Amino acid sequence: MVICRKKNVEIIWAVLESERMQMKSKARVPVEIALFAGTFALITPAVTATAQVAPNAQFRLALMPLPSSITQGEGALTVTPAGGGGSTFTYRYDLTHDARLEAAVKRALLRLGRTCGGDVLRSTIDHPAPANSSLTINVAKASEPLQTVNEDESYQLSVTPQGARLTAATDAGAMHGLETVLQLATNEHGACVLPVVTISDTPRFRWRGFMLDVVRHFEPVPVIERTLDGMAAAKLNVFHWHLSDDQGFRAESKKFPKLTGVASDGQFYTQDEMRAVVAYAGARGIRVVPEFDMPGHGTSWILAYPELSPDAQITQLPVVYGTPTAVLDPTRESTYKFINTLVEEMGRIFPDEYFHIGGDEVQGKAWLANPKVAEFMKKKGYTTPAQLQAYFNQRLEVILKKHDKKMIGWDEILDPALPKTIVIQSWRGEASLAEGARQSYQGILSAPYYLDGQKSSAQMFLADPVPSDTTLTADQQKLILGGEVCMWAEQLNPETVDSRVWPRTMAVAERFWSPQSDRDVSDMYRRLRINSLKLEDVGLRHISGPEVLRRNLVLERNPEALDVLASVLEPVSFHERYQGQHTNGLTTLDRLVDALVADPPSRQEIAGDVDALAGGVIVPPPADAKLSVDLSGDVPSGVTPPPEVALRRLRQRFLSWQAVEPRLLEDVQKTPRLSDAVTRVEQLGELAQVGLSALTYLQTHTAPPAGWEAQQMSILDRAEQPSVLVRFTFLHSMRKLVLAAAQTGTAASRL
Amino acid sequence: MVICRKKNVEIIWAVLESERMQMKSKARVPVEIALFAGTFALITPAVTATAQVAPNAQFRLALMPLPSSITQGEGALTVTPAGGGGSTFTYRYDLTHDARLEAAVKRALLRLGRTCGGDVLRSTIDHPAPANSSLTINVAKASEPLQTVNEDESYQLSVTPQGARLTAATDAGAMHGLETVLQLATNEHGACVLPVVTISDTPRFRWRGFMLDVVRHFEPVPVIERTLDGMAAAKLNVFHWHLSDDQGFRAESKKFPKLTGVASDGQFYTQDEMRAVVAYAGARGIRVVPEFDMPGHGTSWILAYPELSPDAQITQLPVVYGTPTAVLDPTRESTYKFINTLVEEMGRIFPDEYFHIGGDEVQGKAWLANPKVAEFMKKKGYTTPAQLQAYFNQRLEVILKKHDKKMIGWDEILDPALPKTIVIQSWRGEASLAEGARQSYQGILSAPYYLDGQKSSAQMFLADPVPSDTTLTADQQKLILGGEVCMWAEQLNPETVDSRVWPRTMAVAERFWSPQSDRDVSDMYRRLRINSLKLEDVGLRHISGPEVLRRNLVLERNPEALDVLASVLEPVSFHERYQGQHTNGLTTLDRLVDALVADPPSRQEIAGDVDALAGGVIVPPPADAKLSVDLSGDVPSGVTPPPEVALRRLRQRFLSWQAVEPRLLEDVQKTPRLSDAVTRVEQLGELAQVGLSALTYLQTHTAPPAGWEAQQMSILDRAEQPSVLVRFTFLHSMRKLVLAAAQTGTAASRL
Repeated sequence: MVICRKKNVEIIWAVLESERMQMKSKARVPVEIALFAGTFALITPAVTATAQVAPNAQFRLALMPLPSSITQGEGALTVTPAGGGGSTFTYRYDLTHDARLEAAVKRALLRLGRTCGGDVLRSTIDHPAPANSSLTINVAKASEPLQTVNEDESYQLSVTPQGARLTAATDAGAMHGLETVLQLATNEHGACVLPVVTISDTPRFRWRGFMLDVVRHFEPVPVIERTLDGMAAAKLNVFHWHLSDDQGFRAESKKFPKLTGVASDGQFYTQDEMRAVVAYAGARGIRVVPEFDMPGHGTSWILAYPELSPDAQITQLPVVYGTPTAVLDPTRESTYKFINTLVEEMGRIFPDEYFHIGGDEVQGKAWLANPKVAEFMKKKGYTTPAQLQAYFNQRLEVILKKHDKKMIGWDEILDPALPKTIVIQSWRGEASLAEGARQSYQGILSAPYYLDGQKSSAQMFLADPVPSDTTLTADQQKLILGGEVCMWAEQLNPETVDSRVWPRTMAVAERFWSPQSDRDVSDMYRRLRINSLKLEDVGLRHISGPEVLRRNLVLERNPEALDVLASVLEPVSFHERYQGQHTNGLTTLDRLVDALVADPPSRQEIAGDVDALAGGVIVPPPADAKLSVDLSGDVPSGVTPPPEVALRRLRQRFLSWQAVEPRLLEDVQKTPRLSDAVTRVEQLGELAQVGLSALTYLQTHTAPPAGWEAQQMSILDRAEQPSVLVRFTFLHSMRKLVLAAAQTGTAASRL
Repeated sequence: MVICRKKNVEIIWAVLESERMQMKSKARVPVEIALFAGTFALITPAVTATAQVAPNAQFRLALMPLPSSITQGEGALTVTPAGGGGSTFTYRYDLTHDARLEAAVKRALLRLGRTCGGDVLRSTIDHPAPANSSLTINVAKASEPLQTVNEDESYQLSVTPQGARLTAATDAGAMHGLETVLQLATNEHGACVLPVVTISDTPRFRWRGFMLDVVRHFEPVPVIERTLDGMAAAKLNVFHWHLSDDQGFRAESKKFPKLTGVASDGQFYTQDEMRAVVAYAGARGIRVVPEFDMPGHGTSWILAYPELSPDAQITQLPVVYGTPTAVLDPTRESTYKFINTLVEEMGRIFPDEYFHIGGDEVQGKAWLANPKVAEFMKKKGYTTPAQLQAYFNQRLEVILKKHDKKMIGWDEILDPALPKTIVIQSWRGEASLAEGARQSYQGILSAPYYLDGQKSSAQMFLADPVPSDTTLTADQQKLILGGEVCMWAEQLNPETVDSRVWPRTMAVAERFWSPQSDRDVSDMYRRLRINSLKLEDVGLRHISGPEVLRRNLVLERNPEALDVLASVLEPVSFHERYQGQHTNGLTTLDRLVDALVADPPSRQEIAGDVDALAGGVIVPPPADAKLSVDLSGDVPSGVTPPPEVALRRLRQRFLSWQAVEPRLLEDVQKTPRLSDAVTRVEQLGELAQVGLSALTYLQTHTAPPAGWEAQQMSILDRAEQPSVLVRFTFLHSMRKLVLAAAQTGTAASRL
């Protein structure tokens, strides 16, 4: 089968009806394919006469982010033959290669070995072959000393049964191509192969970032490193390191040692460590942009150096979160001298051309309340703190320029007085971002990608930095450089960070990389499920981390009952947790909510099965309108199962909920950290009963008695209510199931 | 119930018949207790009138290592009351405390918070209370700058319903006591309590070590740190860091930068990192003894500095393992100058009084073959390489002494020419160790504690540095300082190290700490099972690490089928794997064998259930006498279940093996790294059938047909044969079950 590039079709992608095409004969057969653009076509497969294994094999790919263009063929390139006969996989370079690319290729081949059988790749790694290699890497030129936002990251990949060829203008492009090769590799009846494919791929946006707050909770270097590995797998290219905030200063300064000596609680990165992180990221095609937030969020600076404040009253780092009023003093020359020295020092450790100055949430009250500052404002003719901040930023911009740095900051830095070289990072949203672009400022979008909002992968995936209905002109659109996923750290720590960041960040990474037309949420979830597992193999712990926490919660080797409960729960949003638990810096993060994965697969699994039974049923909003139910996430993934399969699976699932309830009640009784989860446990049992009775009515074509629907809905309404900082993932689907059962006899039951 | 200390009873320990005593009334009842010494006594419980919760509650403790003396009472001290009302737990110091102890107490309270509910301990940690505290810590004096082998590590702990009191002469003792407090904490119907207990505890041996080879595979600092946390939980006190060997030099030297620059493949510890590890260990009462192995195992030294060898022929670090012939040149003065400089430099980083010089497996051939060395030997009158090594060690000893270091080395350094201050570490065994003691040398035992031998916890636990039948005099016995568990790293890496080290090391730690009379393997396993889970909560990954590897092997979110198989498999010994796989430095460690835990709980679980049905049956050795079946490990843990419970559990287990077989066959077919496991999968299905049919004969009291027994035994014999580097854990018990079934009708079936 060949899927061709067509005129006016941004992206072409095969959605096969089953996991593997069941080829009835070896004859060429026409295959129906669905295109993202909505076009359908019948295409005749190409000849792949000399395939080494399974010449007619069809593979359902799971690339993520989707390439901008892909043509799939028949057959595959063998990496490891079936029967364990050992691999003859080899590689070579055309043109040039440098140490960075060489290291990246070796890392990639080691990972390929994990998928395909490790030992077989050993000789390959040590002895690149000169000719007729399995993989030829063709990079036009050695990499520049410093990757910029304008790096050419495109690559072309062609796999035939005889060999694979990866072509790119730069190392960065080649590294993206290697990640694609790794995602292609698949095991087929004991053989490991790369399916035949032709890919031409280039990112939609140049700035594809991930921001990590390491202030509210500190993250050790190994966490940063595995995060960078995950970013590379997702083809992200900017690590935005939020290094200072009210609660601490996390970057060692030799010039101002008190910044970490006094204001870090001993939790900070040494200069050697920061250089190592920059090198680690650079080796993976990732730029590192450090953020030193000023003039607001500056409590840590002022605790260490009170002279930076107009009226230093800081005696300790704040334990609570929120927006303290501590701000730097923009009226003193000594403030700029301090910043100049710091920027010079940090600028050498972080060689990137951009330097993030924060600039958000400046509390002007402290300025207005200080007579000296008020006098200064009067003299300058400023009537608002925003004007004073603009003055501060102009001074800052001169300092950055002196050290060859470009400024990036949050929405609040937007001011006509600043040059058009700055970049605005929008935490306020698309409208704010667009406003900057209309004023000719470059921008990146972050507002929809705040992970602690606990939105689903689907919701974040669908949010677009430049949506199809944008009112920006083509030139203005070009000013939107991309976006950044943001992970603020009030409610996470090294044990839980992975389960908050992954796999959802990969869904957003696809938004930043792939064409605007890529909006098939079902297929996104299908591919995300597979790549989520691969991310664990890269070293992330978004699945295993919560598993460990659950084991530790109940001190059971196989905490199966708790696993069943956890599989259908997700954390509530930052704000709900903040209000419900008053989380501050001393709150331990070791409860049920911390032992969950964000947006777990159960939502799609249940939605898929329910859709097979009740696809056409429309669910009205829940009775309590205050409850913000996440409907957009209830999208089934993959192929709709036959109704009888869906029914069997749902019944098994509901029975498993019933089966674990007694054990869960024991667990919550014996475990102090779980004791407040009793409501959710009881609700799980009730919801199992709701589901089982609905299935019975559907299966027996029996209409439920009067009042049954209302009774079930009231159980569902109660389950929507907040409890223990976790919410069920499947309530929308369950409503659909109840409605379908209620319509039995009257409406269309599919069974 | 009170269990008292009695004359002539080294240790007293309650073995209750059920997990919790079912108290029929609140009246005081006599309770039968079993003592390790074999004595039984009836003791009247003490009054615990003012207990805050469950005044008559009895708790089955799971302390590990066992204290030297313990008296258990009734009731408990409440840490967190039931109902989530918040804790009033507080602590204070009597006498003195320093920063090290303060930090240790805070860490302990944070961990107590994980067991008992985190937030409740927050105020405690920040504000120690002045009087009437829940926990009073009484330490006689601030700690010495440097912990020595003669440190007083004893402590006393008394818990009453009104409060706990921890008394110790030193910080080190208090830290051991805090680990005991953490092991005592238990959840009881929503409350978290410390059971009433009086403990007086002191270690049997002064040197309780764990050696880690970081050369054959490198282990990053976070692995070292979590290992040290595990050691502290096990009350081990020496971390022996094997930093140099043929395959690499892992410690940065500023004086000889080529040691790591040329001979480490970039994998080494910086001096800052080593200092940080020493500090981390010291904060946990653990001494760090570095090993720089010489004059053998010196390939890395010689690759970096060829002048150290009599005839340098080294061009690269060896990829293969084994014993290369590279040895340092003991005839040149420059060699001693080099060593002197290195010892001085490393001696400052590692302040411990002991310095490990290796000294093992010196290949004299290279010396004998070199004319210059031969000439030197002749001049000195030496006829064997051993004499030349003794000369080398004498020179070394002078250097060490100059830098205030005492020498420790492997068996081979034993020579009458060396002073009696040296310590011999025996990898050769108890006889070699005893020989040293007879010559008045101090020694520590390691031979039985080589973890890569893959012996069971029971086997290692029963091996004693000074067994009860020792022929050493009392004075000679005092020369045996203790022992060390050794983890060589040819066949492990950071992903698998934990599952090789833990929880088995904790069983050996008990041997080093607890009285000689502590030899109840069943109870050891009962306590090990609980503490294994607690070790995971400390941060070790011996359970979760293999889980992740299994998930990655088959790329399934819940690899349940593979988990079932893995639960009844264990790795083969180092030698069997070495011969079966020719493991060298390039062998990837990502197969089924790597995804297993050593000595998993299934052995005891199955043995316990089988014993309930076939306890009296004697199993003859397997037909193939070459197969070294681990019989001593087949000891049931805990209480023997009623026969009907055992039968039900076994049937469920065997059915689960049958149930997963089809899925496993799919897994091995699709996964290259699993393809060679097909034999074990098929055997699992066959063994399930063996077990199920045996159970049927036992349950129906029906005699099996002629030939049945022989047929089953031949299946078992086949399952004993080597395959894919893993072996089943339960074959001995299965033989017992088959024999019991074969005797049905004739012999005593208990059902």
